[in-house]
Amino acid sequence: MKISLNADMGESFGPYRMGDDQALMPYVSSANIACGMHAGDPNVMAATIDLAREHGVTIGAHPGFGDLHGFGRRRIPMTPPEIEHLVTYQIGALQALAAGRDVRVEFVKPHGALNNMAHEESDVADAVARGIRAASRDLLFVANCLSEMTRAADRAGLQVVHEAYADRRYAPDGRLLPRSAPEAVIRDPADAARQVLAMLDAGCLIAADGTRLSTPIDTFCLHADEATALEVAKGVRGELDRTGIAVVAIAGPGGSRIGLT
Amino acid sequence: MKISLNADMGESFGPYRMGDDQALMPYVSSANIACGMHAGDPNVMAATIDLAREHGVTIGAHPGFGDLHGFGRRRIPMTPPEIEHLVTYQIGALQALAAGRDVRVEFVKPHGALNNMAHEESDVADAVARGIRAASRDLLFVANCLSEMTRAADRAGLQVVHEAYADRRYAPDGRLLPRSAPEAVIRDPADAARQVLAMLDAGCLIAADGTRLSTPIDTFCLHADEATALEVAKGVRGELDRTGIAVVAIAGPGGSRIGLT
Amino acid sequence: MKISLNADMGESFGPYRMGDDQALMPYVSSANIACGMHAGDPNVMAATIDLAREHGVTIGAHPGFGDLHGFGRRRIPMTPPEIEHLVTYQIGALQALAAGRDVRVEFVKPHGALNNMAHEESDVADAVARGIRAASRDLLFVANCLSEMTRAADRAGLQVVHEAYADRRYAPDGRLLPRSAPEAVIRDPADAARQVLAMLDAGCLIAADGTRLSTPIDTFCLHADEATALEVAKGVRGELDRTGIAVVAIAGPGGSRIGLT
Amino acid sequence: MKISLNADMGESFGPYRMGDDQALMPYVSSANIACGMHAGDPNVMAATIDLAREHGVTIGAHPGFGDLHGFGRRRIPMTPPEIEHLVTYQIGALQALAAGRDVRVEFVKPHGALNNMAHEESDVADAVARGIRAASRDLLFVANCLSEMTRAADRAGLQVVHEAYADRRYAPDGRLLPRSAPEAVIRDPADAARQVLAMLDAGCLIAADGTRLSTPIDTFCLHADEATALEVAKGVRGELDRTGIAVVAIAGPGGSRIGLT
Repeated sequence: MKISLNADMGESFGPYRMGDDQALMPYVSSANIACGMHAGDPNVMAATIDLAREHGVTIGAHPGFGDLHGFGRRRIPMTPPEIEHLVTYQIGALQALAAGRDVRVEFVKPHGALNNMAHEESDVADAVARGIRAASRDLLFVANCLSEMTRAADRAGLQVVHEAYADRRYAPDGRLLPRSAPEAVIRDPADAARQVLAMLDAGCLIAADGTRLSTPIDTFCLHADEATALEVAKGVRGELDRTGIAVVAIAGPGGSRIGLT
Repeated sequence: MKISLNADMGESFGPYRMGDDQALMPYVSSANIACGMHAGDPNVMAATIDLAREHGVTIGAHPGFGDLHGFGRRRIPMTPPEIEHLVTYQIGALQALAAGRDVRVEFVKPHGALNNMAHEESDVADAVARGIRAASRDLLFVANCLSEMTRAADRAGLQVVHEAYADRRYAPDGRLLPRSAPEAVIRDPADAARQVLAMLDAGCLIAADGTRLSTPIDTFCLHADEATALEVAKGVRGELDRTGIAVVAIAGPGGSRIGLT
Repeated sequence: MKISLNADMGESFGPYRMGDDQALMPYVSSANIACGMHAGDPNVMAATIDLAREHGVTIGAHPGFGDLHGFGRRRIPMTPPEIEHLVTYQIGALQALAAGRDVRVEFVKPHGALNNMAHEESDVADAVARGIRAASRDLLFVANCLSEMTRAADRAGLQVVHEAYADRRYAPDGRLLPRSAPEAVIRDPADAARQVLAMLDAGCLIAADGTRLSTPIDTFCLHADEATALEVAKGVRGELDRTGIAVVAIAGPGGSRIGLT
Repeated sequence: MKISLNADMGESFGPYRMGDDQALMPYVSSANIACGMHAGDPNVMAATIDLAREHGVTIGAHPGFGDLHGFGRRRIPMTPPEIEHLVTYQIGALQALAAGRDVRVEFVKPHGALNNMAHEESDVADAVARGIRAASRDLLFVANCLSEMTRAADRAGLQVVHEAYADRRYAPDGRLLPRSAPEAVIRDPADAARQVLAMLDAGCLIAADGTRLSTPIDTFCLHADEATALEVAKGVRGELDRTGIAVVAIAGPGGSRIGLT
């Protein structure tokens, strides 16, 4: 049994710090790197690529809306071609910075509101998929389980990495519980580890009420923006290591693939 | 005898128009495309790549400072690594957008104040060269004749395309006459054509006072931001065609190289 | 009988031109000046204030979303307090620049998507009203006829200037016909003048299908972003002058009020 | 004997935190509030105004270059009119937000590179002074002791508040020692308190080598961006309180003026 752990990284900007990538990096196997639109800048990107390489962590582009002030969490109405170009632009920027550091961008995972929109709306999901494919057909599309993104990846001929959240609880329809729900965010490391192991054991998504939702799971996301993020990451990683479940990286052709048959 | 003609393109932004790329494109052989920092945005970049391809014009990245308000014409103090990352970022963004349109980015030419700084300061020129090389060793470095950039390209192992200006006059030391000088900008198409032919004939740069400055010339730049830009472009291109001088594109390995032995 | 004519102005940004304020200014009595968020910058604002003063045109703040790339035409989800602060910020910036030029900001009219949202949503309209009142209780609120804004102005104790569009046609429910409708935009100067006179004559809004909607009308907006803008402005202004209808400025206490009993 | 203590505040932006205003506010008497260009945003500004008011701290505008990525620490070449408009814009934005909270902006202190340029260059200092005066003639100009700004304030008819740094050491010519000098930054609270008391006692600036430089001192700045900032602030404030030196606020006409005879 194997799984990958991913987290958002490189979300600092100029003089502003966000998250503690240095502390979190040892516990994940793949890093989603912000690309200078919703967060990040060329210098932060370069430093984050280096940090990931030091830890043997594979990297992916984490493109978002060009909305630093809203941190990419606000839905900006854009046409599908605009979304496609926005995504390709950000991937390319990361690819070139990575190439200069002998690292390859293995995957793409949309950020924040772009992810939420692509989860629900097929035309947005298709636009993201086309934006990824334009940059490279070898890029894996890290897509929320049961989302429009998984279908869009298929339509675009991209390989999907199915993603579940280690530290969020699910509604019976497969959506995340809204943050307003009291149990939406898991802040206890043991609870997060328990959820991860239960889903791996069952081989499917399990909602907060116990409903089982059939889907492959290839990677668990650890959110970096809660105060408890680091402890949750340690707890989940520690439990996976203890249980003997291999924590492998997300990587495309030529790498050691995860979750792809 | 052959030469290439380049011009800055894709400098519109969102709702704002800049230049008339549609009108100018037929007269050049290579387009320097703004990359979303000093000007341009992902949509403008995509449309400009398409326009260039329609006209058989090769493309290059035209990276500048992240200063839309100043249009990249203000010198922003940055460290060499910051400049390097800034350049690589912009090249990569264009490369990915171009890849999705089956076009290759052939060259890089810095914009505005970044170009001016790299012209004069060897550490800036080296940072630009490293930023280019990080994205791809196959990229040609379009560098002002007699500038620090030509030396930096050599040090970085990049091929240089030596650039002169069709519509600007030179001081005896090889710098451009400052725009404050009355004869600095050539607005008469016949004058521009005459200067281009004279330099091609002499095989060197010729200053306004007649001083000859030994340097290869591989490409002439046509500025797009003067009201007379289009007429000058037509005049220069027409005269080259009449004289039977081949106007060829700037292109790297695998393409029809210009000015490279 | 008297009416005011307003138009959006000062929407250039740095090197980018937008509209032809110089040409349009003689035909309006009040200018809505962009405040550096959706468009405009401190230099453009200063120049536009000067231009308005030269023509005896009163000025208002034209605050929009902080979305230059989308020109403030995209709905950015923001909380009411965020909208309130955004509006106050922009008004204050214009007030100070105007004060330094011995000009007073007389009114406020929201721009683009912020206007559309405030038209429909009472909480957004209230937030805009609070944002205006925070800057000064003497500011007039230029609000679309029959919109939530007129009610929000009342609740906030602000005086309303009821606005109709000279160059757009209305649906029977008082909304603008969507731009997708063929007759939505009036590009013929005579048609625009006819619509303006008909509404002034009837003392109410008249929809494209002839429906009459009871509302005061204090000002007509002339859009500046159509190619026909200038001709329409000339046509409307000319017809008003010919008919002997006074074209007066929007001005608060101490000025010659328009449309306020 | 009386003195004011000021510190830069409100430099967070959207999701990004900077400094700990909540912790620092109790130890200062006046807050320099960033105005949305080099840092800050309308929401942060509003919250910072509220926080200052709760602590009886007077507020000033802290305008900087429109360079969030460089945090206003990079010298951006701008013409004097551009600087003037930039300064007025930011002051006005803060004034309106403050007015809505029944607070008055009492003073202006330029930030970062703009401060450094205005310190040395009389035309920049004059542009800043004109920018302040345009917003209001009642605003006090917080200017580095012995800088061009003090003279520019005089020329513009603005009252000067002479500022020294509590936590930086001076060269014999009255400039700050560059941060590269080992003793440039004072991180020991007792050392900072000692420097402040020594200068107050001597009634002049004292350089690191003991040189005395004749100038009034009306306020000491406490930098907020060092890790030791809070401890230094506590140390300086504590020592002033112990010594019985009144820590008063910077305030213009109608307020309790500081350092103005």
